[in-house]
Amino acid sequence: MDNIPSALLKKCVGELSKLPGIGKKTALRLAIHLLKQKPEYSISLGTSIIEMKENIRFCNICHNISEDDECEICRNPKRNHNQVLVVENIQDVFSIENTMQYNGTYHVLNGVISPMDGISPSNLNIESLVSRVENKSITEVILALPTTMEGDTTNFYIYKKLDSIINSITTIARGVSIGDELEYIDEVTLGRSILDRIPYDGK
Amino acid sequence: MDNIPSALLKKCVGELSKLPGIGKKTALRLAIHLLKQKPEYSISLGTSIIEMKENIRFCNICHNISEDDECEICRNPKRNHNQVLVVENIQDVFSIENTMQYNGTYHVLNGVISPMDGISPSNLNIESLVSRVENKSITEVILALPTTMEGDTTNFYIYKKLDSIINSITTIARGVSIGDELEYIDEVTLGRSILDRIPYDGK
Repeated sequence: MDNIPSALLKKCVGELSKLPGIGKKTALRLAIHLLKQKPEYSISLGTSIIEMKENIRFCNICHNISEDDECEICRNPKRNHNQVLVVENIQDVFSIENTMQYNGTYHVLNGVISPMDGISPSNLNIESLVSRVENKSITEVILALPTTMEGDTTNFYIYKKLDSIINSITTIARGVSIGDELEYIDEVTLGRSILDRIPYDGK
Repeated sequence: MDNIPSALLKKCVGELSKLPGIGKKTALRLAIHLLKQKPEYSISLGTSIIEMKENIRFCNICHNISEDDECEICRNPKRNHNQVLVVENIQDVFSIENTMQYNGTYHVLNGVISPMDGISPSNLNIESLVSRVENKSITEVILALPTTMEGDTTNFYIYKKLDSIINSITTIARGVSIGDELEYIDEVTLGRSILDRIPYDGK
């Protein structure tokens, strides 16, 4: 790999292999793929990377991506600004938006508390969540963090921080996925779906 | 995924997901990773992709990558221009160069004959190999194609094309890898290593 004959190819492979999940071999394969394509594609790819980075920032309020100081969701007067849904990362915002079942605002933590990975509460956007709740007319905080030990720890940490200043802290329902067959569900999920059962109203 | 709120992010994800082995989800993960890095990295990555494509061509003689009409290996008077080693793709050239055991020239076919994938001899750099052998003082053609049915077919096709115009057509040795234990070797490789055994001279 150190024997790549072209300095330009070597540089491109080096830059590509800094991306997460892309090693030197994959980077070389991608670079050679690019060399075999039309020049328009490389120009379009390279330009779109640069333009994206130059123009996209993070929202001052919710830390979602944005092309302005505040993101489209935070600026939208039709959204319910009394609700804040707390997620681990930006992709989660896209996933929830795709459901079209939520009309409130978001708060992107940018991770979860994980002492093993050296991520403490101060590395996350928790302080800004607390001051949002303190200063604005927020009536409900919905926690939608992953169901891992780190997610549970973060849920509990946020709960302790917010419990005295807000009445309603909720968490999204965990249960059997729609379409799943009971025999294939893990027992923790199935058990929780029984404990968290809801009234059946025939609808 | 269709709900990505920024046109610039959407474009970048679209371009990244055209790369082989990178789907929409991975492309989004890579793009968001880029957004979280320093701007210098995105600029360096984007520029290196564009510069590489603008400046790297393929060698007129051996089809290896090159920043000129002819590649460094073909232009190097210290290499043995009587030998041509035939490989499937450019990465194979780098691998063989890394061994530092070969001082001849190369010929990159850019694939192997594969009717299933619609790759016929005319799609490969075989004609240019034949004319190299016809017109230049080449004394040995070394076949280093993969040991697959497609590789074997291509070997045979090249052999038929060159047999009447050159004396020495060889293929690289197949056998037990150095450091491998016999009990873990597949039987075809082990069988071939017995058939192709070589005199032991005590070295």
